[in-house]
Amino acid sequence: MKHITSAKNPQVKEWKKLLTKKERDKTETFLIEGIHLVEEALKADKVLEIIISEQSHFIQKINFGDTPVTTVTEEIIKTLSDTESPQGVFAVCEQEKINLNEITGKTFLLLDAVQDPGNLGTMIRTADAAGVDVVVVGQGSVDHYNPKVLRSAQGSHFHLPVLKGDLSEWVEKLKDEGTPVYGTALENGQVYTETTPSPTFALLVGNEGNGVNKELLDQTTKNLYIPIHGKSESLNVAVAAGILLYYLRA
Amino acid sequence: MKHITSAKNPQVKEWKKLLTKKERDKTETFLIEGIHLVEEALKADKVLEIIISEQSHFIQKINFGDTPVTTVTEEIIKTLSDTESPQGVFAVCEQEKINLNEITGKTFLLLDAVQDPGNLGTMIRTADAAGVDVVVVGQGSVDHYNPKVLRSAQGSHFHLPVLKGDLSEWVEKLKDEGTPVYGTALENGQVYTETTPSPTFALLVGNEGNGVNKELLDQTTKNLYIPIHGKSESLNVAVAAGILLYYLRA
Repeated sequence: MKHITSAKNPQVKEWKKLLTKKERDKTETFLIEGIHLVEEALKADKVLEIIISEQSHFIQKINFGDTPVTTVTEEIIKTLSDTESPQGVFAVCEQEKINLNEITGKTFLLLDAVQDPGNLGTMIRTADAAGVDVVVVGQGSVDHYNPKVLRSAQGSHFHLPVLKGDLSEWVEKLKDEGTPVYGTALENGQVYTETTPSPTFALLVGNEGNGVNKELLDQTTKNLYIPIHGKSESLNVAVAAGILLYYLRA
Repeated sequence: MKHITSAKNPQVKEWKKLLTKKERDKTETFLIEGIHLVEEALKADKVLEIIISEQSHFIQKINFGDTPVTTVTEEIIKTLSDTESPQGVFAVCEQEKINLNEITGKTFLLLDAVQDPGNLGTMIRTADAAGVDVVVVGQGSVDHYNPKVLRSAQGSHFHLPVLKGDLSEWVEKLKDEGTPVYGTALENGQVYTETTPSPTFALLVGNEGNGVNKELLDQTTKNLYIPIHGKSESLNVAVAAGILLYYLRA
Protein backbone atom coordinates (compact mmCIF):
# COMPACT_ATOMS: atom_id res chain seq x y z
CA MET A 1 0.00 0.00 0.00
CA LYS A 2 1.45 3.33 -1.12
CA HIS A 3 1.45 6.24 1.34
CA ILE A 4 1.56 9.95 0.43
CA THR A 5 2.01 12.70 3.02
CA SER A 6 2.59 15.84 0.93
CA ALA A 7 -0.21 17.71 -0.82
CA LYS A 8 2.43 18.85 -3.29
CA ASN A 9 3.09 15.30 -4.44
CA PRO A 10 2.58 15.17 -8.24
CA GLN A 11 0.16 12.28 -7.84
CA VAL A 12 -2.06 14.41 -5.59
CA LYS A 13 -2.02 17.13 -8.22
CA GLU A 14 -3.14 14.62 -10.86
CA TRP A 15 -6.07 13.52 -8.70
CA LYS A 16 -7.03 17.10 -7.94
CA LYS A 17 -7.13 17.90 -11.66
CA LEU A 18 -9.96 15.37 -11.98
CA LEU A 19 -12.21 17.96 -10.34
CA THR A 20 -12.13 19.70 -13.75
CA LYS A 21 -14.11 18.56 -16.77
CA LYS A 22 -11.12 19.17 -19.04
CA GLU A 23 -8.95 16.67 -17.21
CA ARG A 24 -11.77 14.14 -16.91
CA ASP A 25 -12.33 14.33 -20.67
CA LYS A 26 -8.60 14.03 -21.39
CA THR A 27 -7.98 11.03 -19.14
CA GLU A 28 -11.41 9.43 -19.63
CA THR A 29 -11.51 8.91 -15.88
CA PHE A 30 -13.35 10.59 -12.98
CA LEU A 31 -13.07 10.88 -9.23
CA ILE A 32 -15.74 9.69 -6.82
CA GLU A 33 -15.99 10.40 -3.13
CA GLY A 34 -17.59 8.66 -0.19
CA ILE A 35 -18.04 5.10 0.92
CA HIS A 36 -21.35 4.43 -0.83
CA LEU A 37 -20.14 5.53 -4.26
CA VAL A 38 -16.83 3.68 -3.87
CA GLU A 39 -18.62 0.48 -2.97
CA GLU A 40 -20.95 0.82 -5.96
CA ALA A 41 -17.99 1.45 -8.27
CA LEU A 42 -16.12 -1.58 -6.90
CA LYS A 43 -19.18 -3.75 -7.49
CA ALA A 44 -19.37 -2.45 -11.07
CA ASP A 45 -15.64 -3.12 -11.58
CA LYS A 46 -14.97 0.47 -12.62
CA VAL A 47 -12.29 1.40 -10.07
CA LEU A 48 -8.72 2.08 -11.21
CA GLU A 49 -7.39 3.07 -7.79
CA ILE A 50 -8.48 3.91 -4.27
CA ILE A 51 -7.35 6.89 -2.20
CA ILE A 52 -8.08 6.66 1.50
CA SER A 53 -7.30 8.67 4.62
CA GLU A 54 -4.64 7.12 6.86
CA GLN A 55 -7.13 7.76 9.67
CA SER A 56 -10.08 6.11 7.96
CA HIS A 57 -11.77 3.19 9.67
CA PHE A 58 -12.94 2.06 6.22
CA ILE A 59 -9.46 0.65 5.52
CA GLN A 60 -10.31 -2.44 7.51
CA LYS A 61 -13.93 -2.64 6.43
CA ILE A 62 -13.83 -2.60 2.66
CA ASN A 63 -12.70 -5.44 0.46
CA PHE A 64 -10.63 -3.62 -2.13
CA GLY A 65 -9.69 -6.86 -3.92
CA ASP A 66 -6.53 -6.26 -5.96
CA THR A 67 -7.31 -2.58 -6.63
CA PRO A 68 -4.28 -0.36 -5.90
CA VAL A 69 -4.79 1.59 -2.67
CA THR A 70 -2.93 4.73 -1.56
CA THR A 71 -3.24 6.06 1.96
CA VAL A 72 -2.98 9.82 2.37
CA THR A 73 -3.07 12.47 5.11
CA GLU A 74 -6.22 14.32 6.16
CA GLU A 75 -4.74 17.44 4.56
CA ILE A 76 -4.72 15.70 1.17
CA ILE A 77 -8.26 14.43 1.71
CA LYS A 78 -9.44 18.01 2.23
CA THR A 79 -7.66 19.09 -0.96
CA LEU A 80 -9.55 16.51 -3.01
CA SER A 81 -12.93 16.78 -1.37
CA ASP A 82 -15.97 18.50 -2.82
CA THR A 83 -17.86 18.26 0.51
CA GLU A 84 -17.64 20.01 3.86
CA SER A 85 -17.19 16.84 5.90
CA PRO A 86 -15.29 14.37 3.75
CA GLN A 87 -15.65 10.66 4.51
CA GLY A 88 -12.00 10.17 3.67
CA VAL A 89 -12.31 7.75 0.79
CA PHE A 90 -12.08 8.36 -2.96
CA ALA A 91 -11.70 6.30 -6.09
CA VAL A 92 -10.47 7.07 -9.57
CA CYS A 93 -12.84 5.34 -12.00
CA GLU A 94 -12.82 4.79 -15.72
CA GLN A 95 -15.50 6.49 -17.78
CA GLU A 96 -17.94 4.28 -19.56
CA LYS A 97 -16.72 3.47 -23.05
CA ILE A 98 -19.75 2.72 -25.11
CA ASN A 99 -19.96 1.31 -28.56
CA LEU A 100 -23.11 2.92 -29.88
CA ASN A 101 -23.89 -0.09 -32.03
CA GLU A 102 -24.04 -2.22 -28.94
CA ILE A 103 -26.49 0.01 -27.11
CA THR A 104 -29.80 -1.72 -26.91
CA GLY A 105 -32.69 -0.84 -24.75
CA LYS A 106 -36.38 -0.38 -24.60
CA THR A 107 -36.60 2.78 -22.52
CA PHE A 108 -34.50 5.91 -22.78
CA LEU A 109 -34.19 9.20 -20.95
CA LEU A 110 -32.81 12.03 -23.12
CA LEU A 111 -31.60 15.16 -21.30
CA ASP A 112 -31.33 18.43 -23.19
CA ALA A 113 -29.15 21.17 -21.64
CA VAL A 114 -29.84 20.29 -18.00
CA GLN A 115 -27.58 22.63 -16.08
CA ASP A 116 -28.09 22.01 -12.39
CA PRO A 117 -25.83 19.17 -11.18
CA GLY A 118 -28.37 18.14 -8.52
CA ASN A 119 -31.12 17.87 -11.12
CA LEU A 120 -28.95 15.86 -13.52
CA GLY A 121 -27.84 13.47 -10.79
CA THR A 122 -31.36 13.08 -9.42
CA MET A 123 -32.64 12.25 -12.91
CA ILE A 124 -29.97 9.58 -13.43
CA ARG A 125 -31.01 8.10 -10.06
CA THR A 126 -34.71 8.31 -10.98
CA ALA A 127 -34.10 6.72 -14.39
CA ASP A 128 -32.32 3.86 -12.62
CA ALA A 129 -35.23 3.44 -10.17
CA ALA A 130 -37.79 3.52 -12.97
CA GLY A 131 -35.94 0.80 -14.86
CA VAL A 132 -34.83 3.01 -17.74
CA ASP A 133 -32.22 1.25 -19.90
CA VAL A 134 -30.12 4.17 -21.19
CA VAL A 135 -29.63 7.84 -20.28
CA VAL A 136 -28.34 10.16 -23.02
CA VAL A 137 -26.97 13.53 -21.94
CA GLY A 138 -27.14 16.13 -24.70
CA GLN A 139 -25.00 19.16 -25.45
CA GLY A 140 -25.24 22.11 -23.10
CA SER A 141 -25.78 19.87 -20.08
CA VAL A 142 -23.49 19.87 -17.06
CA ASP A 143 -20.82 17.12 -17.26
CA HIS A 144 -22.34 13.97 -15.80
CA TYR A 145 -19.01 13.12 -14.13
CA ASN A 146 -19.14 16.38 -12.13
CA PRO A 147 -18.78 15.53 -8.39
CA LYS A 148 -22.18 17.00 -7.48
CA VAL A 149 -23.89 15.03 -10.23
CA LEU A 150 -22.19 11.85 -9.02
CA ARG A 151 -23.26 12.53 -5.44
CA SER A 152 -26.90 13.21 -6.35
CA ALA A 153 -27.07 10.10 -8.53
CA GLN A 154 -25.99 7.97 -5.53
CA GLY A 155 -24.24 5.34 -7.62
CA SER A 156 -26.71 5.01 -10.47
CA HIS A 157 -23.91 5.88 -12.93
CA PHE A 158 -22.71 2.34 -12.22
CA HIS A 159 -26.12 0.76 -12.82
CA LEU A 160 -27.05 1.86 -16.30
CA PRO A 161 -25.25 3.39 -19.30
CA VAL A 162 -25.11 7.18 -19.12
CA LEU A 163 -23.60 8.65 -22.26
CA LYS A 164 -23.14 11.90 -24.10
CA GLY A 165 -24.80 12.18 -27.44
CA ASP A 166 -26.32 14.33 -30.15
CA LEU A 167 -29.99 14.35 -29.18
CA SER A 168 -31.18 15.19 -32.67
CA GLU A 169 -29.46 12.07 -34.01
CA TRP A 170 -30.79 10.02 -31.10
CA VAL A 171 -34.38 11.09 -31.68
CA GLU A 172 -34.14 10.08 -35.37
CA LYS A 173 -32.43 6.79 -34.56
CA LEU A 174 -35.03 5.88 -31.93
CA LYS A 175 -37.96 6.77 -34.15
CA ASP A 176 -36.43 4.70 -36.99
CA GLU A 177 -36.29 1.75 -34.63
CA GLY A 178 -39.97 2.19 -33.77
CA THR A 179 -39.48 3.71 -30.32
CA PRO A 180 -41.93 6.55 -29.65
CA VAL A 181 -40.09 9.68 -28.47
CA TYR A 182 -42.03 11.91 -26.08
CA GLY A 183 -40.85 15.47 -25.64
CA THR A 184 -42.01 17.64 -22.77
CA ALA A 185 -43.45 21.07 -23.35
CA LEU A 186 -45.63 23.58 -21.59
CA GLU A 187 -47.47 24.45 -24.79
CA ASN A 188 -48.69 22.59 -27.86
CA GLY A 189 -48.52 19.33 -26.02
CA GLN A 190 -50.88 16.61 -24.88
CA VAL A 191 -51.73 15.95 -21.23
CA TYR A 192 -49.43 13.06 -20.32
CA THR A 193 -52.24 10.87 -18.99
CA GLU A 194 -53.71 10.69 -22.51
CA THR A 195 -50.71 8.64 -23.61
CA THR A 196 -50.93 4.91 -23.09
CA PRO A 197 -48.00 3.46 -21.13
CA SER A 198 -45.88 1.12 -23.20
CA PRO A 199 -42.85 -1.12 -22.71
CA THR A 200 -40.81 0.91 -25.20
CA PHE A 201 -40.41 4.70 -25.16
CA ALA A 202 -37.97 7.56 -24.92
CA LEU A 203 -38.64 10.60 -22.75
CA LEU A 204 -36.96 13.90 -23.58
CA VAL A 205 -36.73 16.59 -20.90
CA GLY A 206 -34.97 19.90 -21.02
CA ASN A 207 -33.29 22.90 -19.54
CA GLU A 208 -34.53 24.26 -16.19
CA GLY A 209 -35.43 27.68 -17.53
CA ASN A 210 -36.12 27.18 -21.22
CA GLY A 211 -37.35 23.60 -21.47
CA VAL A 212 -36.49 21.41 -24.44
CA ASN A 213 -34.95 23.05 -27.52
CA LYS A 214 -37.73 23.88 -29.99
CA GLU A 215 -36.07 22.10 -32.92
CA LEU A 216 -35.91 18.90 -30.91
CA LEU A 217 -39.59 19.25 -29.96
CA ASP A 218 -40.42 19.42 -33.67
CA GLN A 219 -38.66 16.09 -34.19
CA THR A 220 -40.42 14.05 -31.50
CA THR A 221 -43.29 11.59 -31.95
CA LYS A 222 -45.36 13.87 -29.73
CA ASN A 223 -44.95 16.24 -26.83
CA LEU A 224 -46.48 15.82 -23.39
CA TYR A 225 -47.16 18.17 -20.54
CA ILE A 226 -48.03 17.79 -16.88
CA PRO A 227 -50.99 19.96 -15.90
CA ILE A 228 -50.44 22.58 -13.21
CA HIS A 229 -53.47 22.49 -10.92
CA GLY A 230 -52.34 25.22 -8.53
CA LYS A 231 -50.58 28.53 -8.99
CA SER A 232 -46.96 27.50 -9.50
CA GLU A 233 -45.56 28.19 -12.94
CA SER A 234 -43.91 24.84 -13.45
CA LEU A 235 -42.48 21.74 -11.83
CA ASN A 236 -38.84 21.09 -11.06
CA VAL A 237 -37.44 19.17 -14.05
CA ALA A 238 -36.35 16.17 -11.96
CA VAL A 239 -39.79 15.91 -10.36
CA ALA A 240 -41.42 16.16 -13.79
CA ALA A 241 -39.12 13.44 -15.16
CA GLY A 242 -40.06 11.19 -12.21
CA ILE A 243 -43.80 11.64 -12.73
CA LEU A 244 -43.50 10.94 -16.47
CA LEU A 245 -41.10 7.98 -16.25
CA TYR A 246 -43.25 6.21 -13.67
CA TYR A 247 -46.40 6.94 -15.64
CA LEU A 248 -45.06 5.93 -19.06
CA ARG A 249 -43.55 2.60 -18.15
CA ALA A 250 -46.06 -0.17 -18.73
CA MET B 1 -37.82 56.62 -0.10
CA LYS B 2 -35.31 55.94 2.66
CA HIS B 3 -31.65 55.46 1.68
CA ILE B 4 -29.02 53.60 3.73
CA THR B 5 -25.33 53.63 2.86
CA SER B 6 -23.66 52.01 5.89
CA ALA B 7 -23.65 48.27 6.47
CA LYS B 8 -23.35 49.12 10.17
CA ASN B 9 -26.72 50.84 10.19
CA PRO B 10 -28.89 49.17 12.89
CA GLN B 11 -31.65 48.58 10.36
CA VAL B 12 -29.26 46.56 8.17
CA LYS B 13 -28.34 44.49 11.20
CA GLU B 14 -32.02 43.76 11.86
CA TRP B 15 -32.51 42.57 8.29
CA LYS B 16 -29.39 40.45 8.41
CA LYS B 17 -30.63 38.73 11.56
CA LEU B 18 -33.55 37.41 9.50
CA LEU B 19 -31.11 34.96 7.94
CA THR B 20 -31.37 33.08 11.29
CA LYS B 21 -34.33 30.93 12.27
CA LYS B 22 -34.27 32.35 15.79
CA GLU B 23 -34.92 35.88 14.60
CA ARG B 24 -37.52 34.78 12.06
CA ASP B 25 -39.40 32.94 14.81
CA LYS B 26 -39.16 35.93 17.18
CA THR B 27 -40.35 38.54 14.70
CA GLU B 28 -42.73 36.25 12.78
CA THR B 29 -41.26 37.67 9.59
CA PHE B 30 -38.84 36.40 6.94
CA LEU B 31 -36.61 37.77 4.22
CA ILE B 32 -37.01 36.92 0.55
CA GLU B 33 -34.59 37.66 -2.24
CA GLY B 34 -34.90 38.10 -5.99
CA ILE B 35 -37.37 39.69 -8.32
CA HIS B 36 -39.61 36.65 -8.85
CA LEU B 37 -40.18 36.00 -5.14
CA VAL B 38 -40.72 39.69 -4.38
CA GLU B 39 -43.34 39.94 -7.11
CA GLU B 40 -45.13 36.84 -5.81
CA ALA B 41 -45.08 38.24 -2.27
CA LEU B 42 -46.46 41.60 -3.43
CA LYS B 43 -49.28 39.83 -5.27
CA ALA B 44 -50.06 37.88 -2.09
CA ASP B 45 -49.99 41.08 -0.03
CA LYS B 46 -47.40 39.69 2.37
CA VAL B 47 -44.70 42.35 2.03
CA LEU B 48 -43.89 44.63 4.99
CA GLU B 49 -41.01 46.46 3.31
CA ILE B 50 -38.77 46.38 0.27
CA ILE B 51 -34.98 46.67 0.22
CA ILE B 52 -33.45 47.44 -3.15
CA SER B 53 -30.02 48.27 -4.52
CA GLU B 54 -29.55 51.90 -5.48
CA GLN B 55 -28.16 50.50 -8.74
CA SER B 56 -31.08 48.20 -9.46
CA HIS B 57 -33.02 48.69 -12.66
CA PHE B 58 -35.99 47.06 -10.94
CA ILE B 59 -36.71 50.33 -9.07
CA GLN B 60 -38.45 51.68 -12.13
CA LYS B 61 -40.01 48.41 -13.20
CA ILE B 62 -41.88 47.19 -10.15
CA ASN B 63 -45.10 48.67 -8.84
CA PHE B 64 -44.42 48.69 -5.09
CA GLY B 65 -47.79 50.31 -4.29
CA ASP B 66 -47.59 51.95 -0.88
CA THR B 67 -45.07 49.44 0.50
CA PRO B 68 -42.14 51.20 2.23
CA VAL B 69 -39.00 51.00 0.09
CA THR B 70 -35.42 51.51 1.24
CA THR B 71 -32.59 51.88 -1.25
CA VAL B 72 -29.20 50.55 -0.15
CA THR B 73 -25.65 50.24 -1.46
CA GLU B 74 -24.31 47.16 -3.27
CA GLU B 75 -22.20 46.45 -0.18
CA ILE B 76 -25.37 46.07 1.92
CA ILE B 77 -26.99 43.91 -0.76
CA LYS B 78 -24.03 41.52 -0.54
CA THR B 79 -24.34 41.41 3.26
CA LEU B 80 -27.97 40.29 3.04
CA SER B 81 -27.69 37.93 0.11
CA ASP B 82 -27.72 34.17 0.28
CA THR B 83 -26.68 33.84 -3.37
CA GLU B 84 -23.49 34.37 -5.31
CA SER B 85 -24.93 36.84 -7.78
CA PRO B 86 -27.64 38.81 -5.96
CA GLN B 87 -30.40 40.42 -8.03
CA GLY B 88 -30.37 43.39 -5.65
CA VAL B 89 -33.91 43.23 -4.38
CA PHE B 90 -35.28 41.86 -1.08
CA ALA B 91 -38.50 42.03 0.87
CA VAL B 92 -39.33 41.51 4.52
CA CYS B 93 -42.55 39.49 4.63
CA GLU B 94 -44.90 38.48 7.39
CA GLN B 95 -45.16 34.80 8.24
CA GLU B 96 -48.49 33.16 7.64
CA LYS B 97 -50.62 33.33 10.78
CA ILE B 98 -52.98 30.46 10.61
CA ASN B 99 -55.99 29.73 12.74
CA LEU B 100 -56.05 25.96 12.72
CA ASN B 101 -59.83 25.91 12.99
CA GLU B 102 -60.05 27.80 9.75
CA ILE B 103 -57.86 25.40 7.82
CA THR B 104 -59.97 23.50 5.38
CA GLY B 105 -58.83 21.47 2.48
CA LYS B 106 -59.25 18.27 0.65
CA THR B 107 -55.64 17.38 -0.03
CA PHE B 108 -52.68 17.63 2.30
CA LEU B 109 -48.95 17.02 2.15
CA LEU B 110 -47.38 16.18 5.52
CA LEU B 111 -43.58 16.39 5.77
CA ASP B 112 -41.77 14.52 8.52
CA ALA B 113 -38.21 15.62 9.34
CA VAL B 114 -37.24 16.70 5.82
CA GLN B 115 -33.79 18.16 6.26
CA ASP B 116 -32.55 19.29 2.87
CA PRO B 117 -33.74 22.84 2.09
CA GLY B 118 -33.84 22.10 -1.64
CA ASN B 119 -36.04 19.06 -1.09
CA LEU B 120 -38.42 20.93 1.22
CA GLY B 121 -38.75 23.86 -1.19
CA THR B 122 -39.20 21.58 -4.19
CA MET B 123 -41.97 19.69 -2.38
CA ILE B 124 -43.81 22.92 -1.52
CA ARG B 125 -43.56 23.87 -5.22
CA THR B 126 -44.72 20.40 -6.30
CA ALA B 127 -47.64 20.46 -3.84
CA ASP B 128 -48.70 23.80 -5.31
CA ALA B 129 -48.47 22.42 -8.86
CA ALA B 130 -50.43 19.30 -7.93
CA GLY B 131 -53.22 21.43 -6.44
CA VAL B 132 -52.58 20.36 -2.83
CA ASP B 133 -54.52 22.58 -0.39
CA VAL B 134 -52.26 22.57 2.69
CA VAL B 135 -48.64 21.63 3.47
CA VAL B 136 -47.81 20.74 7.08
CA VAL B 137 -44.14 20.74 8.07
CA GLY B 138 -43.47 18.51 11.08
CA GLN B 139 -40.82 18.67 13.78
CA GLY B 140 -37.25 17.93 12.81
CA SER B 141 -37.67 19.54 9.40
CA VAL B 142 -35.62 22.47 8.18
CA ASP B 143 -37.36 25.83 8.75
CA HIS B 144 -39.59 26.48 5.74
CA TYR B 145 -38.65 30.18 5.83
CA ASN B 146 -34.96 29.31 5.28
CA PRO B 147 -33.67 31.26 2.23
CA LYS B 148 -32.79 28.09 0.30
CA VAL B 149 -36.24 26.62 0.91
CA LEU B 150 -37.85 29.85 -0.26
CA ARG B 151 -35.70 29.87 -3.39
CA SER B 152 -36.47 26.25 -4.30
CA ALA B 153 -40.19 26.76 -3.74
CA GLN B 154 -40.17 29.64 -6.28
CA GLY B 155 -43.00 31.56 -4.64
CA SER B 156 -45.32 28.68 -3.76
CA HIS B 157 -45.19 29.76 -0.09
CA PHE B 158 -47.48 32.57 -1.25
CA HIS B 159 -49.89 30.26 -3.06
CA LEU B 160 -50.97 27.81 -0.39
CA PRO B 161 -50.80 27.60 3.41
CA VAL B 162 -47.53 26.08 4.64
CA LEU B 163 -47.56 25.60 8.40
CA LYS B 164 -45.69 23.91 11.18
CA GLY B 165 -47.56 21.25 13.06
CA ASP B 166 -47.52 18.12 15.18
CA LEU B 167 -47.88 15.41 12.55
CA SER B 168 -49.25 12.85 14.99
CA GLU B 169 -52.11 15.20 15.85
CA TRP B 170 -52.64 16.02 12.19
CA VAL B 171 -52.88 12.38 11.18
CA GLU B 172 -55.53 11.76 13.88
CA LYS B 173 -57.46 14.92 12.98
CA LEU B 174 -57.48 14.09 9.27
CA LYS B 175 -58.57 10.50 9.84
CA ASP B 176 -61.36 11.71 12.16
CA GLU B 177 -62.58 13.94 9.37
CA GLY B 178 -62.64 11.01 6.95
CA THR B 179 -59.51 11.93 4.98
CA PRO B 180 -57.39 8.86 4.18
CA VAL B 181 -53.78 9.38 5.25
CA TYR B 182 -51.17 7.59 3.13
CA GLY B 183 -47.73 7.11 4.61
CA THR B 184 -44.75 6.19 2.48
CA ALA B 185 -42.54 3.27 3.37
CA LEU B 186 -40.08 0.93 1.74
CA GLU B 187 -41.42 -2.07 3.64
CA ASN B 188 -44.82 -3.29 4.82
CA GLY B 189 -46.56 -1.07 2.31
CA GLN B 190 -48.75 -1.45 -0.72
CA VAL B 191 -47.64 -0.60 -4.26
CA TYR B 192 -49.04 2.92 -4.78
CA THR B 193 -50.83 2.01 -8.02
CA GLU B 194 -53.11 -0.33 -6.05
CA THR B 195 -54.66 2.69 -4.34
CA THR B 196 -57.54 4.37 -6.16
CA PRO B 197 -57.04 8.11 -6.71
CA SER B 198 -59.55 10.22 -4.77
CA PRO B 199 -60.44 13.90 -4.39
CA THR B 200 -59.54 13.81 -0.68
CA PHE B 201 -56.31 12.46 0.76
CA ALA B 202 -53.23 13.29 2.80
CA LEU B 203 -49.76 12.11 1.78
CA LEU B 204 -47.06 11.74 4.43
CA VAL B 205 -43.41 11.65 3.33
CA GLY B 206 -40.31 11.60 5.47
CA ASN B 207 -36.68 12.17 6.17
CA GLU B 208 -34.15 11.68 3.35
CA GLY B 209 -32.21 8.95 5.13
CA ASN B 210 -34.66 7.33 7.50
CA GLY B 211 -38.03 7.83 5.85
CA VAL B 212 -41.16 8.49 7.90
CA ASN B 213 -41.00 7.98 11.66
CA LYS B 214 -42.23 4.47 12.51
CA GLU B 215 -44.81 5.63 15.04
CA LEU B 216 -46.39 7.88 12.44
CA LEU B 217 -46.49 5.01 9.94
CA ASP B 218 -48.43 2.98 12.51
CA GLN B 219 -51.05 5.76 12.68
CA THR B 220 -51.79 6.10 8.96
CA THR B 221 -54.72 4.68 7.02
CA LYS B 222 -52.21 2.72 4.98
CA ASN B 223 -48.66 2.98 3.71
CA LEU B 224 -47.61 3.07 0.08
CA TYR B 225 -44.38 2.43 -1.74
CA ILE B 226 -43.03 3.16 -5.20
CA PRO B 227 -41.44 0.06 -6.73
CA ILE B 228 -37.77 0.25 -7.68
CA HIS B 229 -37.39 -1.41 -11.07
CA GLY B 230 -33.66 -0.89 -11.45
CA LYS B 231 -30.73 -1.08 -9.06
CA SER B 232 -30.98 2.22 -7.16
CA GLU B 233 -31.84 1.89 -3.50
CA SER B 234 -34.49 4.57 -3.39
CA LEU B 235 -35.88 7.68 -5.02
CA ASN B 236 -35.17 11.26 -3.99
CA VAL B 237 -37.96 12.24 -1.56
CA ALA B 238 -39.11 15.21 -3.67
CA VAL B 239 -39.32 13.03 -6.78
CA ALA B 240 -41.26 10.39 -4.82
CA ALA B 241 -43.67 13.03 -3.49
CA GLY B 242 -44.25 14.28 -7.06
CA ILE B 243 -45.01 10.80 -8.40
CA LEU B 244 -47.43 10.08 -5.55
CA LEU B 245 -49.21 13.46 -5.50
CA TYR B 246 -49.85 13.36 -9.24
CA TYR B 247 -51.00 9.75 -9.04
CA LEU B 248 -53.27 10.14 -6.01
CA ARG B 249 -55.21 13.21 -7.10
CA ALA B 250 -58.40 12.15 -8.81
